Amino acid sequence: MSSSDAAAPFGACPVPLTEVREILMGHGSGGKLTARLVEQLLLPAFRNPMLEPLDDQAWVDAGGARLAFTTDSYVVTPLFFPGGDIGEPAVNGTVNDLAMGGARPLFLSLALILEEGLALSELERVIASIRRAAEAAGVQVVTGDTKVVDRGKGDKVFVNTAGIGVALPGAELSSRRVAAGDAILLSGAVGDHGVTILSQREGLAFGGEVRSDTAPLHGLVAALLEAFPGVHAMRDPTRGGLASALCEIAGRRRLGVEVDERAVPVHDGVRGACELLGLDPFVVANEGKLVAFVPEAGAERALAALRSHPLGREAARIGRVVAEHPGFVTLRTPIGGQRILDLPYGESLPRIC
Amino acid sequence: MSSSDAAAPFGACPVPLTEVREILMGHGSGGKLTARLVEQLLLPAFRNPMLEPLDDQAWVDAGGARLAFTTDSYVVTPLFFPGGDIGEPAVNGTVNDLAMGGARPLFLSLALILEEGLALSELERVIASIRRAAEAAGVQVVTGDTKVVDRGKGDKVFVNTAGIGVALPGAELSSRRVAAGDAILLSGAVGDHGVTILSQREGLAFGGEVRSDTAPLHGLVAALLEAFPGVHAMRDPTRGGLASALCEIAGRRRLGVEVDERAVPVHDGVRGACELLGLDPFVVANEGKLVAFVPEAGAERALAALRSHPLGREAARIGRVVAEHPGFVTLRTPIGGQRILDLPYGESLPRIC
Repeated sequence: MSSSDAAAPFGACPVPLTEVREILMGHGSGGKLTARLVEQLLLPAFRNPMLEPLDDQAWVDAGGARLAFTTDSYVVTPLFFPGGDIGEPAVNGTVNDLAMGGARPLFLSLALILEEGLALSELERVIASIRRAAEAAGVQVVTGDTKVVDRGKGDKVFVNTAGIGVALPGAELSSRRVAAGDAILLSGAVGDHGVTILSQREGLAFGGEVRSDTAPLHGLVAALLEAFPGVHAMRDPTRGGLASALCEIAGRRRLGVEVDERAVPVHDGVRGACELLGLDPFVVANEGKLVAFVPEAGAERALAALRSHPLGREAARIGRVVAEHPGFVTLRTPIGGQRILDLPYGESLPRIC
Repeated sequence: MSSSDAAAPFGACPVPLTEVREILMGHGSGGKLTARLVEQLLLPAFRNPMLEPLDDQAWVDAGGARLAFTTDSYVVTPLFFPGGDIGEPAVNGTVNDLAMGGARPLFLSLALILEEGLALSELERVIASIRRAAEAAGVQVVTGDTKVVDRGKGDKVFVNTAGIGVALPGAELSSRRVAAGDAILLSGAVGDHGVTILSQREGLAFGGEVRSDTAPLHGLVAALLEAFPGVHAMRDPTRGGLASALCEIAGRRRLGVEVDERAVPVHDGVRGACELLGLDPFVVANEGKLVAFVPEAGAERALAALRSHPLGREAARIGRVVAEHPGFVTLRTPIGGQRILDLPYGESLPRIC
């Protein structure tokens, strides 16, 4: 990352130079305000070669081993929702951040910030979910911490997990390897997690068929890399959704991205909910999907590998990376037009993960 | 840890079997309620050989390397206090948890949970402290995460750091190695951090000479282990103070601990404040002290090494481990009597770190 990047988050996706003097919900959205906070405050403070790629995980050398290391806090509300509770994403999100770098996840830390007055039965449910999710993902919780804050100074349970993984043999994944000509593959339908949380929170029902897609993706990644080890980069489109993942790559790599809107799978329930609520499913969070940037030569093999895995049955080729319009993601619409897919400035869906 | 331990936190320090059905401030105190939560809910859920020693750090094998891994969340209020702000303990606390296992700290993750409305200037101060503390401790922040919660659902800034370190050559430290006959060394005066936070919070002034002792201890540990590699175990007496560190070892190892009250250094300002507030300095948190359990043969050499380091100038031999009264810590008082040093059940000093 050059120093000019730090001054212009997401490259050609410009950020208005409003003087924001306090933290807004949008600073946690995964949108432009988040990028601005990271690139103008956090990255300059801690600049080092491991942090600078700003991938979902850092690669470090420790004791002769090459390790992936990542962290995420989970502040989703409500705690319980169709398809799971805060415990599953707290494991799967960190597992997936490791997997996106081509790492095999091994160990997690678990830190809880509990609000005074939380029912012990709710904590027990969350811990049971974390245990089940860790078992399902094949990772071990090896260290932890518990803090309690006064009533009204927290919100029931905040969970942080950090994770350590080791490189899968042969894989070398980084957003820095993405190149013009790459095919863009998506492992399944977008928007399920975000719409589930939102409808739960607002007491809305959309036919009941919408569930969080929370899932550990390391098995899908292993199948993909076995079929085609030359994958350039992967992202899991969580906060800010598919749009955020694509705009980030386009902005940071100064490349263009072209997406065919009809090619992006969206479940009917999610599409209906988004139309009703005025949301774009492309900016809604996912917790069990991946986007892969794959050299054209391996694209079909990679797509077949995704589709042959239970978590990738709906996988699709959704677009490609181009040298034109660097920093911009363009969307070919169903009626044959073209629009620019931009990041929201701030927050459309707070505390979704 | 045997299964009977899980039913009786801290061995012979028994916990009343009150049926607590919700989270109390005391569950985060480092006292008996914390131990009960860890040993009755968390340990049974995640039981594995890396977690079970319940040391300040876990040792894991990853990619052929032997690594120490730890995590802590920091929820101290107020954010700013004499001697620092939340940023220093957030680095030093995790660095120290690695150092207590005989590890050289290398890498940190940094996860922030920010409350909507936090002044950006306050966040900038905290980030600057984290940067300075990381530089001073020789560790690199390599990965991070930022979440924002609604006004009234957090408290300005919660910080989580996880850390990775590698074993110092020759060191083999674990609470499991503590044995009858071990000398107990303390690296300096107790209670500074907790009394500083409390007086700041309550607007009390105690002559102004009390400051947080927050400091990274890996250099002191390296000097100690170089002088005497046979140290059995170390703890940094943070939440719950010296009493918690000693009761934990006594309870889990089923050994007795004898401490000479006069030998434990306490600064005058801290002693005065504790008398005024009715607090026992032995249960007040420290952020830059260590307790070492050392075979008698190496005790004098170890003590000299501590005292020759700037962070150990006030180091003292404060007691010894005995086979008698297993599970209990006894304190020889200045007037020649003896009392049992027990853990508080719950919370005397909430959100001190």
